[in-house]
Amino acid sequence: MPASPTTSEASRQSAAPGVNALSERLVARLVDEAARLAVAITRTADGTVVVDAGVDARGSIDAGVLIARICMGGLGRVAVRSNFDAAPLWPTMIDVQTSSPVLACLGSQYAGWSLSATKEQTGGKKFFSLGSGPARALAVKEPLFAELGYRDHHDRAALVLEVDRLPPQIVIDKVLHDCGLAPDRLTLVVTPTQSVAGTVQVVARVVEVALHKVHVLGVPLDEVVEGAGSAPLPPPAPDGIQAMGRTNDAILYGGRVHLTVKHDEVARSLADTLPAANSRDYGRPFADIFTSFNFDFYQIDPALFAPAEVWVSSLESGATYHGGRIESALLQDQWGGKTVAP
Amino acid sequence: MPASPTTSEASRQSAAPGVNALSERLVARLVDEAARLAVAITRTADGTVVVDAGVDARGSIDAGVLIARICMGGLGRVAVRSNFDAAPLWPTMIDVQTSSPVLACLGSQYAGWSLSATKEQTGGKKFFSLGSGPARALAVKEPLFAELGYRDHHDRAALVLEVDRLPPQIVIDKVLHDCGLAPDRLTLVVTPTQSVAGTVQVVARVVEVALHKVHVLGVPLDEVVEGAGSAPLPPPAPDGIQAMGRTNDAILYGGRVHLTVKHDEVARSLADTLPAANSRDYGRPFADIFTSFNFDFYQIDPALFAPAEVWVSSLESGATYHGGRIESALLQDQWGGKTVAP
Amino acid sequence: MPASPTTSEASRQSAAPGVNALSERLVARLVDEAARLAVAITRTADGTVVVDAGVDARGSIDAGVLIARICMGGLGRVAVRSNFDAAPLWPTMIDVQTSSPVLACLGSQYAGWSLSATKEQTGGKKFFSLGSGPARALAVKEPLFAELGYRDHHDRAALVLEVDRLPPQIVIDKVLHDCGLAPDRLTLVVTPTQSVAGTVQVVARVVEVALHKVHVLGVPLDEVVEGAGSAPLPPPAPDGIQAMGRTNDAILYGGRVHLTVKHDEVARSLADTLPAANSRDYGRPFADIFTSFNFDFYQIDPALFAPAEVWVSSLESGATYHGGRIESALLQDQWGGKTVAP
Repeated sequence: MPASPTTSEASRQSAAPGVNALSERLVARLVDEAARLAVAITRTADGTVVVDAGVDARGSIDAGVLIARICMGGLGRVAVRSNFDAAPLWPTMIDVQTSSPVLACLGSQYAGWSLSATKEQTGGKKFFSLGSGPARALAVKEPLFAELGYRDHHDRAALVLEVDRLPPQIVIDKVLHDCGLAPDRLTLVVTPTQSVAGTVQVVARVVEVALHKVHVLGVPLDEVVEGAGSAPLPPPAPDGIQAMGRTNDAILYGGRVHLTVKHDEVARSLADTLPAANSRDYGRPFADIFTSFNFDFYQIDPALFAPAEVWVSSLESGATYHGGRIESALLQDQWGGKTVAP
Repeated sequence: MPASPTTSEASRQSAAPGVNALSERLVARLVDEAARLAVAITRTADGTVVVDAGVDARGSIDAGVLIARICMGGLGRVAVRSNFDAAPLWPTMIDVQTSSPVLACLGSQYAGWSLSATKEQTGGKKFFSLGSGPARALAVKEPLFAELGYRDHHDRAALVLEVDRLPPQIVIDKVLHDCGLAPDRLTLVVTPTQSVAGTVQVVARVVEVALHKVHVLGVPLDEVVEGAGSAPLPPPAPDGIQAMGRTNDAILYGGRVHLTVKHDEVARSLADTLPAANSRDYGRPFADIFTSFNFDFYQIDPALFAPAEVWVSSLESGATYHGGRIESALLQDQWGGKTVAP
Repeated sequence: MPASPTTSEASRQSAAPGVNALSERLVARLVDEAARLAVAITRTADGTVVVDAGVDARGSIDAGVLIARICMGGLGRVAVRSNFDAAPLWPTMIDVQTSSPVLACLGSQYAGWSLSATKEQTGGKKFFSLGSGPARALAVKEPLFAELGYRDHHDRAALVLEVDRLPPQIVIDKVLHDCGLAPDRLTLVVTPTQSVAGTVQVVARVVEVALHKVHVLGVPLDEVVEGAGSAPLPPPAPDGIQAMGRTNDAILYGGRVHLTVKHDEVARSLADTLPAANSRDYGRPFADIFTSFNFDFYQIDPALFAPAEVWVSSLESGATYHGGRIESALLQDQWGGKTVAP
């Protein structure tokens, strides 16, 4: 007779730790190892921890990797690795993998929480940033969470802001309120696009960008059961538009993602429709595209936001489909790796 | 004068933790993180833990990696990594390395413990599975252990069963008896060949398959001091024969292993005789070979079970020999990576 | 208004753990896992721990990786990884990365502390070794530390000696004295060049060799903010000169490093001047060069000691420059990977 399970584990699993609990240890390490990571820690009068990972502090690749893992709610592996190719396009790569792609990428990593404050509110400059990371799943301010059917419950959280200055108190208060957190239980991590850590944490979105496009394409999210991918890690560009362009180019023209989905039809279809090459705007550096639309983000074809190359495996059929391609020439033109003598 | 060691460490080393102690922490993680890993935990009336990693539970790549590390008795590194090649055969690879290849692979990981029960004994279907992992070294039911001169002693153990249903109580009782364990100190991990975790843990045998063939070739096992290797990670095939074929193909036609042995003559000889290409049956997909022998496993040439490509270094000479080759075309034919538009 | 940081973290950061504190956990693991790592632990009468990682003990790749991480003062990632190339030059690679390249490589890993004893002092053979690793930063006996502006303070330390026998007591006493340590708070790790662990820890110096040449070239060290690199891991050569030659060849002809520096002019210049190809002696195996100079190390052109290939990114410009190249043919000639049938 088969083993008779007498202890149901359903209750254990329903009480499984959420993205904020799973990333808590990583947040503590970011703060504790601030000196090594070249990030600066400040605390507001109320005790909210603000991690400057590239505004005044220098930040670092190691900080960026840790922040990327926080962004994925502790549910993903993110690593910087050398490319061993005899003649590589690029020497240093970001490698990402998760067995919880929907929760890690859309439930946590996606930069979907819009946070802003007017000049009047800040008493200075207007503030705008998209929040990403596990605190989103406490606030659940985005319609996406209803689709995910996910809401986290935890008394401690972290939110990552891709912006070039520390957030004003009014924005911090809004995050605290929407997350239902005591002030000293929130950690805000600030990563400018033009910083080293900011570049790492954006390029580490290569799988998330694929998951987001799966969603845009209307594919049911529970189709996707595994996700992995890689993209080249460039240095930040000093110019803001170029910096944004460069991290996008790393994914749109240099990103490769391998998804596992349930059904064969979905796998075949995604290999066709997912790659960035499906976009009308594909083929030019992102900074050029953005400039040509007069810096109006919303004029860019949403289909562009996708990895360059995708492999999609189906559990139903066991088949794997492949679409898109890495655009080495475009990246080399943009990033250099200009060979100098000897 | 040289440093006078006054404290002999011999006693410490002879009491070195064995494969069950070294993997205990990994087993605890598999159970504790069940929700994230998509495995289901049940306990028998006596308290034996049964981990379903792909029967009714979905399982995951992360579960498979953890199970592979348990199989290696905590003595190996197993990781899923992206292939950064400009035009890779396959995007996702398993990377394995151990500085204790004989103990990790043959003393623990090898699926050598035959466990069966008749219809009468199970009160239902006949059961058969080969047990792998550290509990083998407690039971030492296989002649191999005499050759290894290894027997573990520990009060807690794990055994991995590559089978498509949970084991009957009579098989659990046999394992408990042969290992001399209290019922609540045993963890059984069930990984069907057709599951995601099952595929991972089989492909992660790429170094073990090399070690086993070293043994079959009659090379003294203490020759081998280091082992590392890689193989492509396919999705599971939904058909049982195809699933078994696919994981075998990953190693026989896509596996590359680097061994370090003591003597030059052994290194040179293994580079010649170890690769799967030495087999009469080499060159066709494993599922075709198996089918052509009417599913009689024992008609397959044992020389086939080996990695496609081997590199063997000798400590005696410092030379490295190379034999065999990855069969990209065969794998691509079988697995797809069929390019669809665009 | 911006977040008002009321708690200055300056004091926290100035009291950041140094290279000895950061590597303490790794040293403990080397000792605790001695059996698995195939290293032998002895203690002097005074309690100083001596780790034999290749003199009488066999040592291992895993021991070498751990020792390399200790050498980098806990500030670097070192890993052995498989090369997934379809037709790789070499199957097994060392991958190194640090966000603290100056401190990790020059403040700790560089083998700059000259330790010797005469025949009279040892009562036997004359002893000479270069010490590397975090204890150097306690002793600060080298002028380099004034340039680095770094001095560590800790009550426990480790020093790595690349030499083929255990150190005499007089050398141990000198290290204890110069570091200001109690005898039982020092761990000495001995890694012969001809051992497996010794080969690993030398090849893992690929980024350090680049940093050292940056210093030789007179570039201000605070220019370098990130470092990563890789090199092929050969087996040790049994002959002493060949062993030294082989680990050097791994870096000089097989090493690739990616640095991030502050200024564009520095990046451009380093891509040109850093690669080993700038040396008069470049192009022959290191053992041949060394032999041709009658084993007089100081006749070798110092410009030779550099990675084969460098990529240097600039934070100022965002540009990346590339110089040098991997010399696959030379390495293959030297190391083999001789293909045997089939």
